[in-house]
Amino acid sequence: MRNIRVLTTNEPWINDRPVEIVERKGTGHPDSLCDGIAERISLDYSHWCQRHTGQILHHNFDKVQLVAGAAHITYGGGTLLQPIRIQIAGRGTATTPSGQPIPLAMIAIGAAKAHLRRTMRHLDPDQHCLIDCFAGQGAAQLVQTVTEVTANDTSYGTAHWPLSRLENSVLEVTRFLNEDLRDQCPIGEDVKVMGARVDGEVTLTCAVPLLASLIRNRAQYEEHRLAIQQAIQAHAAALLTRPVHVFVNMADDENQDSPDSVYLTLTGTSGECGDDGAVGRGNRVSGLITPFRPVSLEAAAGKNPVSHVGKLYNVLALQAAKAIVEALPRVRQAQVTLLSQIGRPLDQPQVALAVLHPIGATLATADSSAAAAILNDWLADPGRVQTLIINQAVTLF
Amino acid sequence: MRNIRVLTTNEPWINDRPVEIVERKGTGHPDSLCDGIAERISLDYSHWCQRHTGQILHHNFDKVQLVAGAAHITYGGGTLLQPIRIQIAGRGTATTPSGQPIPLAMIAIGAAKAHLRRTMRHLDPDQHCLIDCFAGQGAAQLVQTVTEVTANDTSYGTAHWPLSRLENSVLEVTRFLNEDLRDQCPIGEDVKVMGARVDGEVTLTCAVPLLASLIRNRAQYEEHRLAIQQAIQAHAAALLTRPVHVFVNMADDENQDSPDSVYLTLTGTSGECGDDGAVGRGNRVSGLITPFRPVSLEAAAGKNPVSHVGKLYNVLALQAAKAIVEALPRVRQAQVTLLSQIGRPLDQPQVALAVLHPIGATLATADSSAAAAILNDWLADPGRVQTLIINQAVTLF
Amino acid sequence: MRNIRVLTTNEPWINDRPVEIVERKGTGHPDSLCDGIAERISLDYSHWCQRHTGQILHHNFDKVQLVAGAAHITYGGGTLLQPIRIQIAGRGTATTPSGQPIPLAMIAIGAAKAHLRRTMRHLDPDQHCLIDCFAGQGAAQLVQTVTEVTANDTSYGTAHWPLSRLENSVLEVTRFLNEDLRDQCPIGEDVKVMGARVDGEVTLTCAVPLLASLIRNRAQYEEHRLAIQQAIQAHAAALLTRPVHVFVNMADDENQDSPDSVYLTLTGTSGECGDDGAVGRGNRVSGLITPFRPVSLEAAAGKNPVSHVGKLYNVLALQAAKAIVEALPRVRQAQVTLLSQIGRPLDQPQVALAVLHPIGATLATADSSAAAAILNDWLADPGRVQTLIINQAVTLF
Amino acid sequence: MRNIRVLTTNEPWINDRPVEIVERKGTGHPDSLCDGIAERISLDYSHWCQRHTGQILHHNFDKVQLVAGAAHITYGGGTLLQPIRIQIAGRGTATTPSGQPIPLAMIAIGAAKAHLRRTMRHLDPDQHCLIDCFAGQGAAQLVQTVTEVTANDTSYGTAHWPLSRLENSVLEVTRFLNEDLRDQCPIGEDVKVMGARVDGEVTLTCAVPLLASLIRNRAQYEEHRLAIQQAIQAHAAALLTRPVHVFVNMADDENQDSPDSVYLTLTGTSGECGDDGAVGRGNRVSGLITPFRPVSLEAAAGKNPVSHVGKLYNVLALQAAKAIVEALPRVRQAQVTLLSQIGRPLDQPQVALAVLHPIGATLATADSSAAAAILNDWLADPGRVQTLIINQAVTLF
Repeated sequence: MRNIRVLTTNEPWINDRPVEIVERKGTGHPDSLCDGIAERISLDYSHWCQRHTGQILHHNFDKVQLVAGAAHITYGGGTLLQPIRIQIAGRGTATTPSGQPIPLAMIAIGAAKAHLRRTMRHLDPDQHCLIDCFAGQGAAQLVQTVTEVTANDTSYGTAHWPLSRLENSVLEVTRFLNEDLRDQCPIGEDVKVMGARVDGEVTLTCAVPLLASLIRNRAQYEEHRLAIQQAIQAHAAALLTRPVHVFVNMADDENQDSPDSVYLTLTGTSGECGDDGAVGRGNRVSGLITPFRPVSLEAAAGKNPVSHVGKLYNVLALQAAKAIVEALPRVRQAQVTLLSQIGRPLDQPQVALAVLHPIGATLATADSSAAAAILNDWLADPGRVQTLIINQAVTLF
Repeated sequence: MRNIRVLTTNEPWINDRPVEIVERKGTGHPDSLCDGIAERISLDYSHWCQRHTGQILHHNFDKVQLVAGAAHITYGGGTLLQPIRIQIAGRGTATTPSGQPIPLAMIAIGAAKAHLRRTMRHLDPDQHCLIDCFAGQGAAQLVQTVTEVTANDTSYGTAHWPLSRLENSVLEVTRFLNEDLRDQCPIGEDVKVMGARVDGEVTLTCAVPLLASLIRNRAQYEEHRLAIQQAIQAHAAALLTRPVHVFVNMADDENQDSPDSVYLTLTGTSGECGDDGAVGRGNRVSGLITPFRPVSLEAAAGKNPVSHVGKLYNVLALQAAKAIVEALPRVRQAQVTLLSQIGRPLDQPQVALAVLHPIGATLATADSSAAAAILNDWLADPGRVQTLIINQAVTLF
Repeated sequence: MRNIRVLTTNEPWINDRPVEIVERKGTGHPDSLCDGIAERISLDYSHWCQRHTGQILHHNFDKVQLVAGAAHITYGGGTLLQPIRIQIAGRGTATTPSGQPIPLAMIAIGAAKAHLRRTMRHLDPDQHCLIDCFAGQGAAQLVQTVTEVTANDTSYGTAHWPLSRLENSVLEVTRFLNEDLRDQCPIGEDVKVMGARVDGEVTLTCAVPLLASLIRNRAQYEEHRLAIQQAIQAHAAALLTRPVHVFVNMADDENQDSPDSVYLTLTGTSGECGDDGAVGRGNRVSGLITPFRPVSLEAAAGKNPVSHVGKLYNVLALQAAKAIVEALPRVRQAQVTLLSQIGRPLDQPQVALAVLHPIGATLATADSSAAAAILNDWLADPGRVQTLIINQAVTLF
Repeated sequence: MRNIRVLTTNEPWINDRPVEIVERKGTGHPDSLCDGIAERISLDYSHWCQRHTGQILHHNFDKVQLVAGAAHITYGGGTLLQPIRIQIAGRGTATTPSGQPIPLAMIAIGAAKAHLRRTMRHLDPDQHCLIDCFAGQGAAQLVQTVTEVTANDTSYGTAHWPLSRLENSVLEVTRFLNEDLRDQCPIGEDVKVMGARVDGEVTLTCAVPLLASLIRNRAQYEEHRLAIQQAIQAHAAALLTRPVHVFVNMADDENQDSPDSVYLTLTGTSGECGDDGAVGRGNRVSGLITPFRPVSLEAAAGKNPVSHVGKLYNVLALQAAKAIVEALPRVRQAQVTLLSQIGRPLDQPQVALAVLHPIGATLATADSSAAAAILNDWLADPGRVQTLIINQAVTLF
């Protein structure tokens, strides 16, 4: 009954293509911070609603803007001159069905702080940030839709599986920087890794902020920068089983000694001075930015997990793609795309498309049918994806 | 000398693929308004700098957030209850090299109003909006780079040419709504067109706000909605030379009469009540959102046109793709991708890639060389693209 | 029945005291602008309520803060660098008794602009100001009281009549500057007059901003400053029938020529650069600041004219004092003071006191009784004062 | 050399007058909170400047606005729905003479939090407040004056000593509520005491917020309210050695049981819901509001302690009045008034006036001369007052 299409493709396999570009913004990047805050607000708001009303009320908190502060950085320290402003927008229901007021603003501000505390070791939201909530009610026309589990927008989601070798390594190097290396080196969380493969040659260009309070002078900065570069190189080479070129902090000015000429931060993020951020401007639900892959421009973070197709269909597409590849050994890669139409039930997309990459020239009809069945199963139960999101069992950025 | 790669592909031609999805947000969509404001600020700031200092100073105004107002809508009118908040972030140089203060905030606020006045017929920025500028100085490390014409970020741009039939028709139907139909029907500018092609069948799902002040009741609303639907159908069928399914305002509730159950606005944009917006969340430099095409997630709008590769490389890629297709009759389509590395000169990308779709099985070496030469020419003179942007000779969203 | 007390005093008559200090902030002073905006909001909100509901709903808009902008001033012009921020606080009812939303924020912002347009000739609220409304609902406990016409606060009002000679002349010189002289000289509205009388000698120290766009250089500035000083001197001497010392712009630095060393403005108010303002920090309901007279610290401007004793009792006291002096030729001066108690009816003050200055040594009992009767009449009908306020028939600052 | 005038008066002694009104807003009243924040900012900024530059730089932080939050109060608890907004305005120097940036905004926000933490036991500035700093640079013309110790404004200060019996008791009862009783009863800090004396009869009308989290129902509320009323009565009667009428929370609605009908707060201040605040709208430097005493309308809190006459002259007047009364046993009361003129040295007021109340009919010439000498000594050394302010040895509100 559902409009499901399964196709095969013979395009060159991603790892065999001559050029590939993959990027990931780390957890402390201003765009990632906004994504994380937006999603945390949606989660906390959803939990509040479930606890007090037994259901999730309509909301979309997928607009958060981070306005950079100002800082005076020196070797050995520095001073924050202006706080980082976090401007929460979005829509939420302000009153429960029984008429009780919902502390929307307080939930949102609290969620933003919780996310920053969990993510950043040297950024104190109370001390360094000024978090304001401008969120209001949604349009009356859209508020109802959440309960009916119909699509609240004409939108689509798309995802592929598995990741390419370069995709994997960019993801893993970023994780390495955000989780492992920060325990060994004086670095912040606002890292960014840009991977490029031209034929067999892989280049990773990394931005890694050092912590001003722990760096006494330019020489020490260089020492650490070299250590970081070598650590990444070793880590990436092991992942990719081939030589990798690694560049760290290419914007540094080699001819100057001043703290302005290198990448130093007080708090671990460039958001403290000069870099703004916004939701939906960074990583996709795969955790990556992949120009040569079909992607959705919808921000998944912050949207309500019940009816917002821009969120649900992206997650569902990734889950279905994974399920197909795991179930069917002769499918090397699956790309799943789902298109909704506003007002129609969530489990009835306008079209659901799986493009499969067979190992070998063609794919057996049975495999196609199996893929269609898997996709059909996932579509039949949107609540499964909702639960994954609510339980934070999937990444969204 | 430049790292230019020209490849051919034999993937199925876009018009021959079984499924295609294309979307465009109209000029009055909150995301498009933010894009337009961001770019207008960059232009006005650039012109101010040129007039007073002879050069464009460092800036990036690619973060603008629109927080929806609140409105009480009735048939025949309504009341704005809360203004639309426009929160301008971004970075600019606040002082000229000779020490004169630059009225950054005033330029930005003025530019935002100018864009809204030019775009929206029923939205008065002075009356309906509250526009605040939070923009500050950039990080010292990045400020200098603008003058040296080196890449200020590790980023990439990518674009294809020509547009597919569906892409063309989505672009054209949106233009038709924003420019022609609003003179004939009581509609606002916040339109959105989602096009889907499954095999030969094309569906256009359109959101078109009607103006509350000009609609007396539900019957009249339906009358206009039908007229709009028919006008789009006729227009699109002529473009596509095939039957098209057109849906307009699918979120309307057919079982209710209240003004809340249909898509009515006072000002022509859903930003007046319930829909927030942000830069870089909508159309790409092609004017479209195209999930099955390689795209950049960088927002072009608002970035400085001198050194920001996220802006320059996207525009340059589109110009080069157009030039290649126009010059080489045996090239059916060109996809150009450029990858920068922060700190390196703009005209020396890490890699420049043209993927060409030959008419016929293969492409002559001469055509490959010609394509490389065209790409090389465009790269050799980034000033050409800068001038196109400054003169508003290219669209950015 | 009312607790009315009439006393006489033999203290020296104000004109006979050796020292007197009187000040008035002109209409363009940041504090006066805030007072004017607050009152205009209360008026416009009251009119909206009357028109839509037939009654005035609870409100208090007596908190408005003006945050100075920033300007770069030159002879012959200058540039506004930062807008003047006007931050409206206060409380209002957001919904009519029948459930219709009240566009509180839009009324408040519109009122602020209307006041600025009516007051300032060179300040354009749309161009130079950023007006935001933070007003919300009041505490539930206080909302009801407006309908019952009981005192909403324990507060008092006090006023005297007639004005002393110095008071009269400060009031009149300020009016002269704000209304007459600005048609003859290139001056703004942010004037301030401080009058001091030591024995018979009167000194008026005046701050009078000149308009930068109309002043070419320091010499021309001095020329105008001298003309202003002479015009004030002539005007004040005529009023006071005695010599007056007049000083204008005493903060000017005589040893410098720069535009920073004199009092120049673009818009006519120091609020454009460096001087903040707030409600209730300037003139009392008499229009003056008079340290040697009993005064209330309550801000009258912006408060609701139905139940707020801090507003009503100050106005009522002045009206009653005037009425007493006009009716009783043997009363040289009346000082009326009214003290409320929260929760008690407005027409039942805790105490109402009239202190009368007889011409001659004592006052006849009949005059005392007549004064008590006049005061009683005014108290018996608070609606009379409410009407005066609503019709703008009395000044409040 | 200084223009000092000493006069005597035979007006009735304050304690002998038939009517007296005296008010004090407690430390948690929104106006007092703003005063306290303003002064704390001035102190912290001054200390920063002294530590880093050896001098106090120009500033005036005498504009702070508190915008009430919103709260849903129940017996036993409640929820904050909207944070309390604290909007800091004012002017400060942003750069040291040697060019180092001063973290103006961070000092101001930190100072506001410090004051709230020190004053309020149940209000957490991080959790309940949203504190923003809009302070900027001052006008160039005024910035210099701080170093020259000339008056930066034409202003005056005035104060009397000693306090009347009623003044003393209002001050002491408020202190008792803010310091002692809050350890015994579940009350907040936002108390207000309005004292009225009509002939010998004294009435104290007190507003005392109870803490919602500690009050289970209306009966318990009444129990505590009665205990508070009795405690005040006992305390006041002892002070005044006469019977006192004490009213507590007169706005309570006796006919209702709901938490809205009584004075309950979560945080101890009405600023959490419905009551805004501003600097300079409450207590004078005496700690009191005294309509029948000469007073200055200048806000002392937040102004710079080096050159702002509106601050210095009020404090200096009080110190001098105290010194005169302490030194001269035949002076029952002294009222000191100082008038500056902008641009003139601080120690050269336009006029300095001491009005003395002799015990007996007249005052000896020697006492007049002694009073003039005491006033002269205080004027000769403005640094003495500056030091008292900087060391927080005097109250300002």
